Amino acid sequence: MPDNQIIQGFSKFSKDERIGFLSSRYGFSGETRDLLISMQAASPDIQKIIEELSENTVSNYHLPFSVAPNVVVNGQVKTFPMATEESSVVAALSKAAGFWAKHGGFHAEVLGTEKKGQVHFTWPGQPEKLQAAFPEIRKTLLAESRAITAKMEQRGGGARSIELKYLPDILPGYYQLDCSFETCNAMGANFINTCLEQFAQSLQNQFMVSPVFSGTERECQILMAILSNYTPKSRARARVECPDDALDSPSGEKQVAEKMVQAIHIAKNDVSRAVTHNKGIFNGIDALAIATGNDFRAIEACGHAWAARNGQYASLTDARIDNGVFRMEIDLALAVGVVGGVTAIHPLAKLAMQILGNPSAHELMMYLAVAGLASNFSSVKALVSGGIQRGHMKMHLSNILKQLTVPEKIRPLVINYFRDKTVSYSDVEDFVKTILNA
Amino acid sequence: MPDNQIIQGFSKFSKDERIGFLSSRYGFSGETRDLLISMQAASPDIQKIIEELSENTVSNYHLPFSVAPNVVVNGQVKTFPMATEESSVVAALSKAAGFWAKHGGFHAEVLGTEKKGQVHFTWPGQPEKLQAAFPEIRKTLLAESRAITAKMEQRGGGARSIELKYLPDILPGYYQLDCSFETCNAMGANFINTCLEQFAQSLQNQFMVSPVFSGTERECQILMAILSNYTPKSRARARVECPDDALDSPSGEKQVAEKMVQAIHIAKNDVSRAVTHNKGIFNGIDALAIATGNDFRAIEACGHAWAARNGQYASLTDARIDNGVFRMEIDLALAVGVVGGVTAIHPLAKLAMQILGNPSAHELMMYLAVAGLASNFSSVKALVSGGIQRGHMKMHLSNILKQLTVPEKIRPLVINYFRDKTVSYSDVEDFVKTILNA
Repeated sequence: MPDNQIIQGFSKFSKDERIGFLSSRYGFSGETRDLLISMQAASPDIQKIIEELSENTVSNYHLPFSVAPNVVVNGQVKTFPMATEESSVVAALSKAAGFWAKHGGFHAEVLGTEKKGQVHFTWPGQPEKLQAAFPEIRKTLLAESRAITAKMEQRGGGARSIELKYLPDILPGYYQLDCSFETCNAMGANFINTCLEQFAQSLQNQFMVSPVFSGTERECQILMAILSNYTPKSRARARVECPDDALDSPSGEKQVAEKMVQAIHIAKNDVSRAVTHNKGIFNGIDALAIATGNDFRAIEACGHAWAARNGQYASLTDARIDNGVFRMEIDLALAVGVVGGVTAIHPLAKLAMQILGNPSAHELMMYLAVAGLASNFSSVKALVSGGIQRGHMKMHLSNILKQLTVPEKIRPLVINYFRDKTVSYSDVEDFVKTILNA
Repeated sequence: MPDNQIIQGFSKFSKDERIGFLSSRYGFSGETRDLLISMQAASPDIQKIIEELSENTVSNYHLPFSVAPNVVVNGQVKTFPMATEESSVVAALSKAAGFWAKHGGFHAEVLGTEKKGQVHFTWPGQPEKLQAAFPEIRKTLLAESRAITAKMEQRGGGARSIELKYLPDILPGYYQLDCSFETCNAMGANFINTCLEQFAQSLQNQFMVSPVFSGTERECQILMAILSNYTPKSRARARVECPDDALDSPSGEKQVAEKMVQAIHIAKNDVSRAVTHNKGIFNGIDALAIATGNDFRAIEACGHAWAARNGQYASLTDARIDNGVFRMEIDLALAVGVVGGVTAIHPLAKLAMQILGNPSAHELMMYLAVAGLASNFSSVKALVSGGIQRGHMKMHLSNILKQLTVPEKIRPLVINYFRDKTVSYSDVEDFVKTILNA
């Protein structure tokens, strides 16, 4: 098949047909087809679960599934399950965990769990009239959503509030229903979206039937009804503290705490530094989120927008020294669920939850904040203590050796040679060639 | 082993010992231990590659590996490999691809590929003196990094510029070397960090040896030398256009293009909407980034900070209607690599690159921008065309059926019953019980 042609009916193809299409268009060898098959789960039942999570599947993409032990959170010793392709992320979190286990551990708390959604609409009447009528409309909206919210209310959740916002600077006659929800242990996306679509329906009805309105006032245009992943009132905080000299290394590295405070202060005031600083925070958060089947795009989007809440994108962590005590903390807006979704279906996500002690959504929010703080602590400490390249270079060399498929027996020679040298792909390649031709 | 005790020497444990620790601490059944083993790659060589990417590994976490065909980019028909756990992401991208294939496809371009890094330092002298001496210092820094940059320069890259920034508002006597690099097809993290650490070393030497300085001026304190993931001058843009009525559905949905323009305008002006809007963009981008072995945390951090560049977090896409023509585009800051790293090691990342036609870093930047634009187009279109819940509810029901392990033969009954009802876990559970007890 010529490779610049549209393929018709692909979404109806079986997995074999999809692989057949790829093979013919991209000239797959038999080995490549075998690879796609061999990466699937050994158990057909599990394979079915994995591939039904998405569409047009042809194989499974494996991430290493790791654990970081000794994470002391509020006095409990936890093992964090992590899924990440990036080297050093698990090692960095484990190292931070080990250090803080000796200094009282991580202290974490949840500052709120309010989730948000919006109904966006335009309406041609006088805003004062709608504002006056809104208290009654709100009652009707909440009443007409009872069938949807009843079960969630039994679990202690539900629709919490509906505010009317008039925002004519954005669009003429534009309003929002700004709604808040409590969804307990669920991420609650389906619950919130269903509520919002019901609110939108009820709102349209109210404009139609209420005696307050007439003429063109009876017509409102619903633009969208959708949850917001920005949850500034769903937040977790984690903090650590220790004597400032506890961070100095026995081998002579001094004033590490002071340098860390300076480095974090820079990340609070310089965007270029803040981005990489926070990227390192999400290294840990995302690895735990993926392992537990949570949607890391939602966590990232919320967290980064939260980092920009004061008009300049800035560090999510803060640090200071008070009377010889080093204190560091993270304050993170995020929303997660522990029932439903991938968490309840994916066999390794279920296992990750078991390793964590089947936490509530509250607890998982705290663990994610801890994962972020721990990752950041290790990166910043390494950065101000002589750079991260020494550690990274070791990993980099190891990756290059794999890439060049250097025979196991000559690897020690190469590693030894590059012990005090800068590692680059081409230098390693040259050196390996020299040895192999010697 | 009591589960509130620190485990010593874990990083030296073999994989079997790690699994043994988890089993004893968390009471794993034999089945759970078998699960960890069974999720590993069938080929021992491949398993070794996967588990050596990270540390403390105990198994592999599988994401569905999917393909979205018919993505027309600058006239070429591409198949996008995607790895995501979220339902509808691949379907949404495929649907957008199919639509735009009939309307000229996606037009994409790279607006720059400059990468950044910073050396952060404090120095006690007069800033004017350093500024005057800096042109000579810069020459020395560049000269002394030649050994590191030579190979990259042969490939057309290298260290491009070093600017001195004096930022006393952040810290007393605080300066940055603000450095830019071109790393061609590599992500270049190791190259950039090695250059920066060399710059830092050379800078310290200059303060020591230059006849310009004396006394305390000889002492500068290097705080950090590290790349920045914020790359506002490494950018890709993708756009589409079609007659505005082409978006209306034959069944009667009208003015879809106008509503999409309004919805995107709201996402440009309302943070709560912008976060979810951009989250949907990264659904597509991350799925392609993961499949090709790229670091999605770096892409997310850069992209979200870019979304906040004007002081308010806002939509990454824009849309308008000009004389009956609907136009939509994404403008994204991002940096990726196609040589080295996970891309060159992970067997499915290598295969993903093969499916994409082994693109250059330039081309992959464009494909990532297209993945973001395509995902956003589908979400916004669905949102303004009667809500996304209908489609989502079908997926939600399917997940609940799996979770409740509802027998295949009664699934059609359940699906039929909920066709016109709101789906919730408890309602489905109740209904299934009723049938099974009938």
